[in-house]
Amino acid sequence: MGQNLAQKIIGDHLISGEMKAGEEISIRIDQTLTQDSTGTMAYLQFEAIGIPRVKTKKSVAYIDHNTLQAGFENADDHKYIQTVASKHGIYFSRPGNGICHQVQLERFGAPGMTLLGSDSHTPTGGGIGMLAIGAGGLDVAVAMGGGPYYLMMPRVCKVNLKGSLKPWVSAKDIILEVLRVLSVKGGVGKVIEYAGEGIKSLTVPERATITNMGAELGATTSIFPSDEVTREFLKAQGREADWTELLPDTDAAYEEEIEIDLTELRPLAAQPHSPDNVASVAEIGKIKVDQVAIGSCTNSSYMDMMKVAKILKGKTVKPDVSLVISPGSKQVLTMLAKNGALADMVSAGARILESACGPCIGMGQAPASNAVSLRTFNRNFEGRSGTASARVYLVSPEVAAASAVEGVLTDPRDLGEAPVIEMPSSFEIDDNMVIAPAPEGKEVEVVRGPNIKPFPINSEMAERVEGSALIKVGDNITTDHIMPSNAKLLPFRSNIPYLAEFCLTPCDAEFPKRAKESGGGFIIGGSNYGQGSSREHAALAPLQLGIKGVLAKSFARIHMANLINSGIIPMTFQNEEDYDKIDEGDRLEIENAREQIKAGDCLTIRNITKNTDIRVNISVSGRQTDMLLAGGLLNYTRKQSK
Amino acid sequence: MGQNLAQKIIGDHLISGEMKAGEEISIRIDQTLTQDSTGTMAYLQFEAIGIPRVKTKKSVAYIDHNTLQAGFENADDHKYIQTVASKHGIYFSRPGNGICHQVQLERFGAPGMTLLGSDSHTPTGGGIGMLAIGAGGLDVAVAMGGGPYYLMMPRVCKVNLKGSLKPWVSAKDIILEVLRVLSVKGGVGKVIEYAGEGIKSLTVPERATITNMGAELGATTSIFPSDEVTREFLKAQGREADWTELLPDTDAAYEEEIEIDLTELRPLAAQPHSPDNVASVAEIGKIKVDQVAIGSCTNSSYMDMMKVAKILKGKTVKPDVSLVISPGSKQVLTMLAKNGALADMVSAGARILESACGPCIGMGQAPASNAVSLRTFNRNFEGRSGTASARVYLVSPEVAAASAVEGVLTDPRDLGEAPVIEMPSSFEIDDNMVIAPAPEGKEVEVVRGPNIKPFPINSEMAERVEGSALIKVGDNITTDHIMPSNAKLLPFRSNIPYLAEFCLTPCDAEFPKRAKESGGGFIIGGSNYGQGSSREHAALAPLQLGIKGVLAKSFARIHMANLINSGIIPMTFQNEEDYDKIDEGDRLEIENAREQIKAGDCLTIRNITKNTDIRVNISVSGRQTDMLLAGGLLNYTRKQSK
Repeated sequence: MGQNLAQKIIGDHLISGEMKAGEEISIRIDQTLTQDSTGTMAYLQFEAIGIPRVKTKKSVAYIDHNTLQAGFENADDHKYIQTVASKHGIYFSRPGNGICHQVQLERFGAPGMTLLGSDSHTPTGGGIGMLAIGAGGLDVAVAMGGGPYYLMMPRVCKVNLKGSLKPWVSAKDIILEVLRVLSVKGGVGKVIEYAGEGIKSLTVPERATITNMGAELGATTSIFPSDEVTREFLKAQGREADWTELLPDTDAAYEEEIEIDLTELRPLAAQPHSPDNVASVAEIGKIKVDQVAIGSCTNSSYMDMMKVAKILKGKTVKPDVSLVISPGSKQVLTMLAKNGALADMVSAGARILESACGPCIGMGQAPASNAVSLRTFNRNFEGRSGTASARVYLVSPEVAAASAVEGVLTDPRDLGEAPVIEMPSSFEIDDNMVIAPAPEGKEVEVVRGPNIKPFPINSEMAERVEGSALIKVGDNITTDHIMPSNAKLLPFRSNIPYLAEFCLTPCDAEFPKRAKESGGGFIIGGSNYGQGSSREHAALAPLQLGIKGVLAKSFARIHMANLINSGIIPMTFQNEEDYDKIDEGDRLEIENAREQIKAGDCLTIRNITKNTDIRVNISVSGRQTDMLLAGGLLNYTRKQSK
Repeated sequence: MGQNLAQKIIGDHLISGEMKAGEEISIRIDQTLTQDSTGTMAYLQFEAIGIPRVKTKKSVAYIDHNTLQAGFENADDHKYIQTVASKHGIYFSRPGNGICHQVQLERFGAPGMTLLGSDSHTPTGGGIGMLAIGAGGLDVAVAMGGGPYYLMMPRVCKVNLKGSLKPWVSAKDIILEVLRVLSVKGGVGKVIEYAGEGIKSLTVPERATITNMGAELGATTSIFPSDEVTREFLKAQGREADWTELLPDTDAAYEEEIEIDLTELRPLAAQPHSPDNVASVAEIGKIKVDQVAIGSCTNSSYMDMMKVAKILKGKTVKPDVSLVISPGSKQVLTMLAKNGALADMVSAGARILESACGPCIGMGQAPASNAVSLRTFNRNFEGRSGTASARVYLVSPEVAAASAVEGVLTDPRDLGEAPVIEMPSSFEIDDNMVIAPAPEGKEVEVVRGPNIKPFPINSEMAERVEGSALIKVGDNITTDHIMPSNAKLLPFRSNIPYLAEFCLTPCDAEFPKRAKESGGGFIIGGSNYGQGSSREHAALAPLQLGIKGVLAKSFARIHMANLINSGIIPMTFQNEEDYDKIDEGDRLEIENAREQIKAGDCLTIRNITKNTDIRVNISVSGRQTDMLLAGGLLNYTRKQSK
């Protein structure tokens, strides 16, 4: 029986476990990446582990999140990351060099390798044939130290692309269609593997748009084969040597398969407030648009920007629309500045932002009250834009640019002939904004600003785990609910005590206060609890508040791993209806917690207030069991290395 | 006896009063400008006055301050300004179109005209031979309504420039030298008029750098003649028709005269924390630099940017320096994007920010703790950068760019041959980001977001004015102390009740609370109280807190006018030593306040606690007396129009 792409790469990197879907495996990590909002914590954790130099093939620390710098905190954190990276053997991508995923693709990613990143959109690397996975900072810290990365062997879902895209339809529409079909939960526990004739006409940046937003499916990762298209891209990046062919075996087996006919696709949009709330632009109609934002790790490549520039050339953005554009990297920006495309954008009235994540992560450009904002980004969760009442639609660069000019949501097919952009045969290559680590780490002094506060570390699991149901929330709670991420809070990613004051406040403003007054307790969640970003702050902030366990109908993968890493017990109801048997304020307890967890799979939680017992599942591996008992991954890793 | 430039323009626009230094005069205003941080209030006030269309020759509303947009407030305010401008006959310069002073110079300013702007750097227009004055928003609102602008007839100080600048020395060094000679108080009550052979070699943008920073002298305004250089600039802007020659009469008289030999000048820097703390770069030495910021209304012209690009070309910004560049306008940015200069900057590692005020007003790019930041800006007040511990040096673009590459404060003369930039014979002209007002205002609906709160309006002066000395501060208190302006507070410029919670908090965190609990009272200040920006929020916030009067050793001009506009009594000690006779908490009262103020010049304030009387001066005109009695300019204007 032949192997699919995921099996090939995992097989090449397997350290422990069996490649059977749902079994825990561990793999060797070739490359890591961090960005600055998760990176400060990841490096603090790496320092706590105590290994002097990274053991990966290449680890890169990017600065792309906190680039507005409203206070000293950001520049201080950047200095910390720059110096800690230099000391421990990590490459440092300076602010202004671009968005981590875009730069990693351009300059470092290589087919067949494994990449672990402390950002949920790390799967962007799948566009170049990497197995690229998003994880919590602590997982990345362990991987940098040469430790294995543990995960459940995913099921592999083949997405067969047939035909080819019609003019004005683009990669963003493919992934929006996949989201429409599979939903934001449809990828949980899976690798999404793209195949079929249709992939040949997709460039690497287009493939990367698709694997990037695989994160919104909840997938472990997404991946494309490495073929001639990949070779051409790497050659144009001066990295042909990094190319290897990587194709699935012709008789590869898949646990699941869907087919998408590219010829049938039309321009699509994800409507508020979920990436899978997808309809065609034509169906939604010509709604009035207030803001258009183009960029983010999903759609900020040279190809994307050139299409936008061609659409804007000689036109003017409608008077009541604000158009902001953030090119994805220094490479992209330099090329646009050289070939006149940037001048076309500026002439048309586009506001050019720094090459960084910017408004995608709520760092600036919050829309007006009740505004409609079209964004080429990957998430449109309520409030993520910085404006609670804004309605955000996710669209392709073509739809975005056309709508900016027309002032209403516009099907670009109405504009006539589509621009044709040639993939450059060579990109502008200059890595002068990537700083190599010091050859000897010892002489580097790590600079720590006053914003870097000690992070919470759990203690060994108690025999009896007890507390109140401090909050009860519904389905699809995102990490943006659990740990809001906006221009005001992002600067404090290395200050958990401060951040914890905002934990789950979008659901209940009183939660942090109540949790502290009660001395901790439990969170009750619905299904897909913790979807969204990889931020482990969504586990660290509850830990800071004394949360001991989360009971939910189901969990998003990365968040569940982050809870376990923090020593917080993730439990799912055996019977989903039991969700109704717990009210906020009920006293809950787990008797003989250590024994019950050791015994595995399920345990009994007692609702003292209602005098009932509830059976819950714990889907953890033996290693994760040990981790929970030890009080989290850091305690576990320290114990292991003793 | 011949006339100088100030006398000529004032004479042409005089409505009332006699042109004798120190006498109150009023003049007709041809043009107004507002920016978005003072503009919301100015337009709310204009609406309160109740005149349907502006009566000026041209009024322009710019968006250049609140462009980070961390919350909905900014985009809401932009919408308000855009719609209120359209309704009332005001041109609207969209976000991204550039910094108000730069754009006004490029596209609207004209020699011999008067310009009133709700921004303290409005004198930038003096570079093109305008009489351009910064004022509070309410003054601008009155001027838009066709009302006269009142001021004390300034003394005119001639600055005779002889010789010409050596390579690597530039306009910034001239104004830094003037600041060194005259100090931040040296321009109070004066117009600074540039003359001499030396001006012929200075382009309009260079002249504008000098008049811009005349604001730091405390001057009413600064002005250059309109000559052939001016004509060439306007011609290159496609506006030769706007040119008129404007030269001082050969026998013009000046109240004061200084001379600067340009040939003698060296690259200079204003050291922390005052623009007049000037020394030569060579004297200060090669101190380590952490950040370099290039841009602002002082130094963001095409010529400035081209010099920077030439210095950066082919180099890389030092690894531990963050270099940010904000080109001054869409025109500048487009030209740099077309001619390759922007590509040179990006290639060297510069972070390109939007064409806006940005870090100059604390909107982003706060330096790291204790960092040294070199800035081509106009103010280096403590904390203005957003980082209390940062040390900011004001320098020329040449020094800034050279230092970014070298990593230490660098005298650019060490770099060898200086770049020579030709003034373009034609600029890139496209006013597509300036929206003309609606031909009929009636049909325009003004959009008001939830951030727009009613502003405080004083009531008629009481017979007895009484209260505590709520705070006692030292010399040179700036408007940044009185009403801090940073990334967190700027979005709330249309929300005075919120802003007031931060009034004078850099001096005393408890002040707002104490003022409210005491039901208002008095502020005791040193000399040059209220220096800095034109923000009338520095008067409105105290008004919101119930402040009835300010006693100081001396006042900065615009701030004193703003106090009077708000109906707050500005008093100066007849005997400066009486400053020591008041302690914080002392009960003060002015008996028969209305009568005493009507009687003019001076009055007696009683320190009840210490049982002493203190004589104070009130330097107000008859009209300002009426304004104080009426409870401020708005009440006065309403009364007048009845």
